[in-house]
Amino acid sequence: MFLIKVLVIGAAGKVGRLIVEKIQQTDYTPVAMVRSKDQKEMFEKKGVTAVMGDLEKDFESAYADVDAVIFAAGSSKETGAEMTIIIDQEGAIKATDRAVHFGVQRFVMLSSMAADRPEAGDHSIKHYLFAKHRADEYLKKSGVPYTIIRPGPLTNGEGKGRVFLSEHVNGGESISREDVADVLVKALKHPKAENKSFDVVEGDTPVEDLFRH
Amino acid sequence: MFLIKVLVIGAAGKVGRLIVEKIQQTDYTPVAMVRSKDQKEMFEKKGVTAVMGDLEKDFESAYADVDAVIFAAGSSKETGAEMTIIIDQEGAIKATDRAVHFGVQRFVMLSSMAADRPEAGDHSIKHYLFAKHRADEYLKKSGVPYTIIRPGPLTNGEGKGRVFLSEHVNGGESISREDVADVLVKALKHPKAENKSFDVVEGDTPVEDLFRH
Repeated sequence: MFLIKVLVIGAAGKVGRLIVEKIQQTDYTPVAMVRSKDQKEMFEKKGVTAVMGDLEKDFESAYADVDAVIFAAGSSKETGAEMTIIIDQEGAIKATDRAVHFGVQRFVMLSSMAADRPEAGDHSIKHYLFAKHRADEYLKKSGVPYTIIRPGPLTNGEGKGRVFLSEHVNGGESISREDVADVLVKALKHPKAENKSFDVVEGDTPVEDLFRH
Repeated sequence: MFLIKVLVIGAAGKVGRLIVEKIQQTDYTPVAMVRSKDQKEMFEKKGVTAVMGDLEKDFESAYADVDAVIFAAGSSKETGAEMTIIIDQEGAIKATDRAVHFGVQRFVMLSSMAADRPEAGDHSIKHYLFAKHRADEYLKKSGVPYTIIRPGPLTNGEGKGRVFLSEHVNGGESISREDVADVLVKALKHPKAENKSFDVVEGDTPVEDLFRH
């Protein structure tokens, strides 16, 4: 059997950890990109390969033999809009550049609802939506096969395994981080998800039925 | 004689006011884009046509019959990195989109030294350099004939009329806002400045001799 390696950027984050778990339930092999040795050990204890990499500095070595990338990194609200530029926008752009360089076969981006129409955001969130928008647009033009997933507001609740996924969803229903992680991992496999962008919120469609038509 | 209209975006700013004055000394006609009625009246008292426009909202009407654009808008340090994204990056990108739409013949961008290599910036300025970099890159790919000017640290001193302009200047010498305004206006005219980017600091070359070869 071929080993399909999926680099998870932002693996130590709330969604990132769930993505790693979901990948472990597939035939694929997760590679968790983390910033600290503690985080690396945490993953290794769970039998997950982890590599050190910092979006603000260097992370090129993390791409060795990687087939696919899921980008789930994000700065926190506490670190301010400076880091929104440096991590959410420029980190994603650098990750895309590396994916081009290393010939990655699929790049799945964790984006945000309304990142495709940042002008619609209210003032407190508009700069964030613009940053995500620039990163998404850069990926779309990069030539790397991509899927962009724009979830509604994230909750910590247990995943329901059912969502509503569409190119555009009206309204801002929420969705659990677990279901988002599930959708991101599902998007890795399906040819129908390639070079497409989707909004996703909680709903009625089983995640396993997504991207079939 | 043909009327050549130059829209100055950010006309009420420190460099913007000087740009308007410099254009008045040429055969061209400045159109000052401003956000407030007070600013509009200030320019009109000086015999300068002024139009209302807000980079964060709408400014499309400002482009009527405009032949060239000088973009000299910038958020202030006080308004934070959110506004760096919304004005310095996205405002410039929107201004570029409008220039494409209206078939503007020249777009002169006031950028910043090191905006072509933001990674080199220290942490306090890196997010700003990234934002300027994205705006510059967007302009370069837009198809609008452009000149990008990246001055060193700006001073309020009187212009010397002499600068050092080159594709890359090593070192961070300063330059007066007046000399920068002079260079931006000079770049409007010269075919040799088209689709090029330059660093500029104070130096020995008379501004009138720039872009000759």
